[in-house]
Amino acid sequence: MFRRKKRWTDPLIPELMELVGEEHVLYHRSDLIAYECDGFTLVRGEARAVVFPADTGEVAAVVRHLHRKEIPFIARGAGTGLSGGATPLGGEVIISLVRMKQLLKLDLENRTAVVQPGFVNLKLTRSIEGDGYYYAPDPSSQYACTIGGNVAENAGGAHCLKYGVTTNHVLGAEVVLPDGEVIRLGEDGIPDIPGYDLLGLVTGSEGTLGIVTEITVRVLKAPEAKQTILAYFDDVEEGSRAVSDIISAGILPAALEMMDRTAIEAVESANFPVGHPLDVEALLLIEVDGIAEGIPSQSSRIVEMCRRRKVREVKVARNEREAAAWWANRKTGFGAMGAISPDYLVQDGVIPRSALPDVLEKIREISRETGLRIANIFHAGDGNLHPLILFDGRKPGEKEKALAAGSRCLQVCADAGGTITGEHGVGIEKIEEMRLVFTEEELQAQIAIREVFNPDNRLNPNKLFPQPGRCAEVKQERQRTVQGK
Amino acid sequence: MFRRKKRWTDPLIPELMELVGEEHVLYHRSDLIAYECDGFTLVRGEARAVVFPADTGEVAAVVRHLHRKEIPFIARGAGTGLSGGATPLGGEVIISLVRMKQLLKLDLENRTAVVQPGFVNLKLTRSIEGDGYYYAPDPSSQYACTIGGNVAENAGGAHCLKYGVTTNHVLGAEVVLPDGEVIRLGEDGIPDIPGYDLLGLVTGSEGTLGIVTEITVRVLKAPEAKQTILAYFDDVEEGSRAVSDIISAGILPAALEMMDRTAIEAVESANFPVGHPLDVEALLLIEVDGIAEGIPSQSSRIVEMCRRRKVREVKVARNEREAAAWWANRKTGFGAMGAISPDYLVQDGVIPRSALPDVLEKIREISRETGLRIANIFHAGDGNLHPLILFDGRKPGEKEKALAAGSRCLQVCADAGGTITGEHGVGIEKIEEMRLVFTEEELQAQIAIREVFNPDNRLNPNKLFPQPGRCAEVKQERQRTVQGK
Repeated sequence: MFRRKKRWTDPLIPELMELVGEEHVLYHRSDLIAYECDGFTLVRGEARAVVFPADTGEVAAVVRHLHRKEIPFIARGAGTGLSGGATPLGGEVIISLVRMKQLLKLDLENRTAVVQPGFVNLKLTRSIEGDGYYYAPDPSSQYACTIGGNVAENAGGAHCLKYGVTTNHVLGAEVVLPDGEVIRLGEDGIPDIPGYDLLGLVTGSEGTLGIVTEITVRVLKAPEAKQTILAYFDDVEEGSRAVSDIISAGILPAALEMMDRTAIEAVESANFPVGHPLDVEALLLIEVDGIAEGIPSQSSRIVEMCRRRKVREVKVARNEREAAAWWANRKTGFGAMGAISPDYLVQDGVIPRSALPDVLEKIREISRETGLRIANIFHAGDGNLHPLILFDGRKPGEKEKALAAGSRCLQVCADAGGTITGEHGVGIEKIEEMRLVFTEEELQAQIAIREVFNPDNRLNPNKLFPQPGRCAEVKQERQRTVQGK
Repeated sequence: MFRRKKRWTDPLIPELMELVGEEHVLYHRSDLIAYECDGFTLVRGEARAVVFPADTGEVAAVVRHLHRKEIPFIARGAGTGLSGGATPLGGEVIISLVRMKQLLKLDLENRTAVVQPGFVNLKLTRSIEGDGYYYAPDPSSQYACTIGGNVAENAGGAHCLKYGVTTNHVLGAEVVLPDGEVIRLGEDGIPDIPGYDLLGLVTGSEGTLGIVTEITVRVLKAPEAKQTILAYFDDVEEGSRAVSDIISAGILPAALEMMDRTAIEAVESANFPVGHPLDVEALLLIEVDGIAEGIPSQSSRIVEMCRRRKVREVKVARNEREAAAWWANRKTGFGAMGAISPDYLVQDGVIPRSALPDVLEKIREISRETGLRIANIFHAGDGNLHPLILFDGRKPGEKEKALAAGSRCLQVCADAGGTITGEHGVGIEKIEEMRLVFTEEELQAQIAIREVFNPDNRLNPNKLFPQPGRCAEVKQERQRTVQGK
């Protein structure tokens, strides 16, 4: 029996198969659809192929090959990113890291873990919680997102108020540079290293400087005890003031989350309702953790501070199950929007904590003016807002209106002395908004840094920074939609 | 009355005077002696002049002028650095920032302070402690060192175990680039910003990327309560194991310091004796802080853990005065070496905590082999060692022997999977040792980053990285001394 030798329309495909194995390359149009975008679904593009390397050597081999052939490429983890960082703009090869999902090393004595980039965030905590440890950064997508993706986006989460974002937990990385060279950054387990902080530079670089193929992270001892407090307010401003009071009092909660009335309606209509009253204007969900003896006094001080701010009701979770239900209700909040709106656009801005009441009022104005409902779910403790703009994509013009409203929310954050992304990244979504917070010179300085690592802009091209060329078209298109509101 | 117009041997001097005022330029050889080195006194060089600008505008004007004339220059704070980062190698203009010492803005609601670079570290805490706040990074030189210098060196301190180093507390900076352009990095008060983390890159860049002229730092609410514990051990290894036990138990002390027998002899012979027994092999000084209710149980657990490790004596400070005396005794430890030795060389290496007993034994071996006493005072909690090599510079060859012993200590740290500096920096001192922890390619990647900011290597030239040219001579000289042991 002879198998007829397949003739390829794209000669790159058999070359990639040579490098990673035939079954680890996708190239059919139907297979590529799933890779047209990441969690930011409003911009889509078609990849040339998707490859699934098994290890660093295969990543480096694929990268060297693409570098020689001058073909652009993008690294991708679970694709849960919310700003289009893993979205192809047309013709890129996607290097998916999902097969590289091993926990390579655990050193609990020195509190470090070494993982491959495709290792799922939550699995790390699951692997070590039996020994009393956990991995702190906890984006809401932690059940699916990968630590490699977390490094690319410098992911945060509800607990970054107390424990910091991903960059505070990454101690070392192996990186494949855009020409295929493999370097190591950081020293495993050593917090400060000599020379420039290249590890910090790569963390949060949104896949534009290199492909991280191995990561050493810090793991923490689980806190001895924790407690969750829930407070309902008839007035958003009073809730915001309670947030300020708590922080000013020197209490550093592990998490301090706020949801407004529209957000509460959504989460109560979705899969994890917990009986929140539907007529309150805001709720605060507060977690304190630490040494067992310290918890009751912290809880009662927080309850007291809420009471001083005209809280309608404030309660402490009666048991772990109740706290877990409250948190599940909060953590699935974005998805819950589907219960009250056909589509939604999540924004991500940061403001100084003291500007919270003002900025929330301005977002309500945008909602009134555009006629679009805007729900707010956010990390109030560190001023990281997530306005969720609800719209119906089937109605002509609504998507554009939503994009414009989102852009205005970011402008409000920038005007308040804040910035345009807290944890979701710039990706393709916010390229234009980079101009709200950086001057042309500052952008050029950043692009000069990219050129050191990625001189041909072949790795994740046309992301993160506004620039001429292909990107200009995308920008123009986005500007048209933004201006078209 | 006519003043005769002065004729300058160096035409640069009147040009600098034009920019910053006549009384703010030093140029007499006798005046320049004080600027021949910083706290690392083993390498000295002569500056061409020292200028004292009053503000960012003057810094930028001086830098632009020197850039045009292709004259190298160095920024300098209080000159307390321990690796020669502010030491001229010959012919540089030193830009001293000590006149720029204002606290520009305090925003306690958002917990930030904006300072000029010459503002002294401890003055920040002194300015806000009345309101219950403090600035966390506390290098032992904090009574003198400046926050600008802290940013350059990414300074640590006894409390960085719990609170992190300078980079964890810097939120924004104004930077004069080596061509005189002024840029701002970071957003005031916003922890995570879009784009590459250039602020993190500049922090710890040892004055080679730009001159920081304004800094926004995070200030913290002072902990509600703290307690200090002192434990004496007859065996260094048992003390090291107690350190591991404490960390493994999930207690995160604010500080966890160790001194060995020789160090104890020194501090007890110097200005702040507290009656430590002179025949113990090690002491641990441990501070816990946080919510008042949590302190007694943490203290008693630490006492218990020390007891399980054959402690000779362990005691809890009876009052704040006693704790303060113990800390003054520790914090002046380096200077105390003068009481038992004519000269000393302080080293600064980092190791994984678990390697502590092994590495200490290897340092004792170096001491035995070289015949030089080595005292150890160090941040045991984060594995940041400070071997103090005692020598008599008047004896021929002893300085060289001490330098060689210091270099061997760093080799031991690197071999143990650690690195060559925890908080003192590379400066001129450890240029050669950079090769112990970085490959040639990794060094080239870092130099490529420097070239983005500092393409002519005119700002603090020949520091931080081994490279050809003038630096090679210095390297050769150092190699000669190291090999000459």
